[in-house]
Amino acid sequence: MSYEKVTASVQARLRQIVGAAYVLTEREKMLPYSHDEVTDPSYHHLPEAVVLPASADETAAVVKLANTCHIPVVPRGGGTGLACGAVPIYGGIVLSTERLNHICEIRPDGLYAVVEAGVRTADLQAAAEARGLFYAGDPCSGDSCCIGGNIATNAGGNRAVKYGTTRHQIYALQIVNPTGHILSVGAPLRKQSTGYCLEQLLAGSEGTLGIITQATLKLFPKPPYCSDILAVFPTAEAAVTLASTLLQKGILPTCVEFLDQTTLHAIADFLQEPLPGQADGHYVIIEMESADEDERDRHLLQLDEYCRAGGASQVLLAEYKKIWHLRKSFAEAVRAESLCVSKEDVVVPIEREAELLQKIAATTARYRLTVRLAAHAGDGNLHLNILKPPAEDYDAWQRRVQAHQQELYTYIYQLGGRLSGEHGIGYKRKQLMKKFTNPEELAMMKAIKQAWDPNNILNPGKIFDLP
Amino acid sequence: MSYEKVTASVQARLRQIVGAAYVLTEREKMLPYSHDEVTDPSYHHLPEAVVLPASADETAAVVKLANTCHIPVVPRGGGTGLACGAVPIYGGIVLSTERLNHICEIRPDGLYAVVEAGVRTADLQAAAEARGLFYAGDPCSGDSCCIGGNIATNAGGNRAVKYGTTRHQIYALQIVNPTGHILSVGAPLRKQSTGYCLEQLLAGSEGTLGIITQATLKLFPKPPYCSDILAVFPTAEAAVTLASTLLQKGILPTCVEFLDQTTLHAIADFLQEPLPGQADGHYVIIEMESADEDERDRHLLQLDEYCRAGGASQVLLAEYKKIWHLRKSFAEAVRAESLCVSKEDVVVPIEREAELLQKIAATTARYRLTVRLAAHAGDGNLHLNILKPPAEDYDAWQRRVQAHQQELYTYIYQLGGRLSGEHGIGYKRKQLMKKFTNPEELAMMKAIKQAWDPNNILNPGKIFDLP
Repeated sequence: MSYEKVTASVQARLRQIVGAAYVLTEREKMLPYSHDEVTDPSYHHLPEAVVLPASADETAAVVKLANTCHIPVVPRGGGTGLACGAVPIYGGIVLSTERLNHICEIRPDGLYAVVEAGVRTADLQAAAEARGLFYAGDPCSGDSCCIGGNIATNAGGNRAVKYGTTRHQIYALQIVNPTGHILSVGAPLRKQSTGYCLEQLLAGSEGTLGIITQATLKLFPKPPYCSDILAVFPTAEAAVTLASTLLQKGILPTCVEFLDQTTLHAIADFLQEPLPGQADGHYVIIEMESADEDERDRHLLQLDEYCRAGGASQVLLAEYKKIWHLRKSFAEAVRAESLCVSKEDVVVPIEREAELLQKIAATTARYRLTVRLAAHAGDGNLHLNILKPPAEDYDAWQRRVQAHQQELYTYIYQLGGRLSGEHGIGYKRKQLMKKFTNPEELAMMKAIKQAWDPNNILNPGKIFDLP
Repeated sequence: MSYEKVTASVQARLRQIVGAAYVLTEREKMLPYSHDEVTDPSYHHLPEAVVLPASADETAAVVKLANTCHIPVVPRGGGTGLACGAVPIYGGIVLSTERLNHICEIRPDGLYAVVEAGVRTADLQAAAEARGLFYAGDPCSGDSCCIGGNIATNAGGNRAVKYGTTRHQIYALQIVNPTGHILSVGAPLRKQSTGYCLEQLLAGSEGTLGIITQATLKLFPKPPYCSDILAVFPTAEAAVTLASTLLQKGILPTCVEFLDQTTLHAIADFLQEPLPGQADGHYVIIEMESADEDERDRHLLQLDEYCRAGGASQVLLAEYKKIWHLRKSFAEAVRAESLCVSKEDVVVPIEREAELLQKIAATTARYRLTVRLAAHAGDGNLHLNILKPPAEDYDAWQRRVQAHQQELYTYIYQLGGRLSGEHGIGYKRKQLMKKFTNPEELAMMKAIKQAWDPNNILNPGKIFDLP
């Protein structure tokens, strides 16, 4: 893939579009835009320019210019990705949505919000809450990730069991397409059958088919009661099986989170405090919304019953802030142990999770891998973090990690699973995507990309390579 | 658009693929395949052959042959469409899925079913129920429509308020693509971000992008309690506003159906029995699922309170069979009044429904149109049936209908609405689609079609025309 360079004349035209202050070309200022949260420097790449448009019109003008000049454009939200989706691997322009940060409208009667792409997820959550409403999307990085990035990666997070992932929150998108046209797809309708559902195609397309500039997202009335339960299970298999049991019983929690015992110890060390029941096993955190106190009491009794029937040794009412601080410390605790971590984001049908955990225990032992493990057990999405031992040579460790990956993914695809539950493919998993995806399916994805972006300028080299 | 003919030699090859008994070429046998439920004969068109494959392999072989020979292939499920989506307007082959009628698997642990495309919706519902499970998709034509058609049109139906439309029931699809390859897209996963979401692109694409041969669909545990409420409102506006009120209050019914007073009288005449409260106004039927008796009682009290606060003069507990028999008699009652009916399937944001009803009352009066009206009020989807007066000339009536359509749709798009809530565009609404859709959006739909189906053999001339 060969592209034109961002020359001085292109820079000048970019400055005309967005204003001189919003075109960054100094190495130091561009460095933060050379990577996402993947720490491995081999995945970093400096752009030639960073552009910060303030509107869809400016975004469109930048894309039009880039398309005409044959320069790649890589859209970027909060930069919290874990698949190098926002890394400009061919240089060119990083288009940051950070100035597209307005909450345009919140409609309590229609139960939706219209927000620009650069709005932080936590800011939308807070704005909805201030109106007695609720935005259901909730990635663990909610404080720093942006709505546009959530949509582009179909971010999942903690509430997907009840509310689905980011794609399920979408009514409509305003996008800039690869030839620089602004268009709106979808509408705030609870039902429609009026042509192809382009908004769902764009969601999860990782910036390869369009740059999201604005989104119309579903809101809900704020649930009156929300309880958090902590259950401690003697085995990891019993712990994750609970999720599937609850769903079969018709109980729909907001989330069912799993932390294995080794990981709990790592989090306890990081937080420098002992955790309740830490010595006894594995954690399951269940969050349950209820309409009133009676329903809440019924839910708590049912959860207690099913947890104990499933083998839990302890079932405790948890304090919201404390338990979620613990859960959300997972990534930081891992980082405190090692800066060199291979992160997997696999997903399987929930009824196969216990099998997957057994397989992981066996294969990681065989490959002598140090593992920290958290799972969104309620939706089958498992985050496997493999830590490099300090003493080991990087390349030798990588060889073991990759050999293990191949074996693990082969097994996961046999279970009906996929490479990524919520982080996306990006640049990092592109080779795995090629290996594990039906070539005919991949060809159909590529055909859409080529039809919409004939010059391959929007986030090239992500998800797949074009011939 | 010009195609090759189904010659004797093509017929012979079709017989080799599916067996001689499953290729129909006699006019009489093909007649039922020349139309869907649109009665107007100007929308009927005879195919050159009807083919009934028994497997995805046979379907693929038929499509491959058609693609090689440049013959159109029109997939057909139950033939209950209302937009002429299954009508072979360029002749060629109608590919009926009626022999693809196996329920392959029902998985209570994973809460999903794998079914072939030709399975009737009611049969899947019954099979799920027999296992204590529940399939949420429920078009009014459930007894005769098929899963493949439901997916192709993103059929809505009665339970969309709580469960969404058919696209929300889909985990995975097996399809035959326009070049005759079988592939699977999606997986029974509650979360994933592994490439473009092709299953959601295919859902609602009305057979133009692929022929669905099998689907993996979500199931739910059967809700323990289900209550039906009938509320009678003095004005149509107050009636439809209830839906929006309930959702804002955090009450999520399975469905909120609306029947206006004129329509009630027509149904009463058809059923030859008076309906309760018929003289007092307009009907709202609310169905509400509950987890136990306490919750059911609370739901009923709340519904009574909100209905009365919204102006209802009567709020009655309804008998399930009776009230749904009444609701589902709508189409037949209309047919009993006139065989010549123009059916609209418009959809607006639910908070704009009352405005739309006022507009419709004004415009249909001005155009002197006889109207029967039912709405899935809980999702903004309104079925406007315009009856031809027996004495009037067809063409004169059509001119008034079409002039009214243009005015109505202009207004609906101003409200953020769309042409079709659940019937699709098909052949019937293609010109309206062209007029009311942003050309850039339409161009992006067409680009996908052209990239996947370069010979334009799969259901050509539906949704849009290609140049």
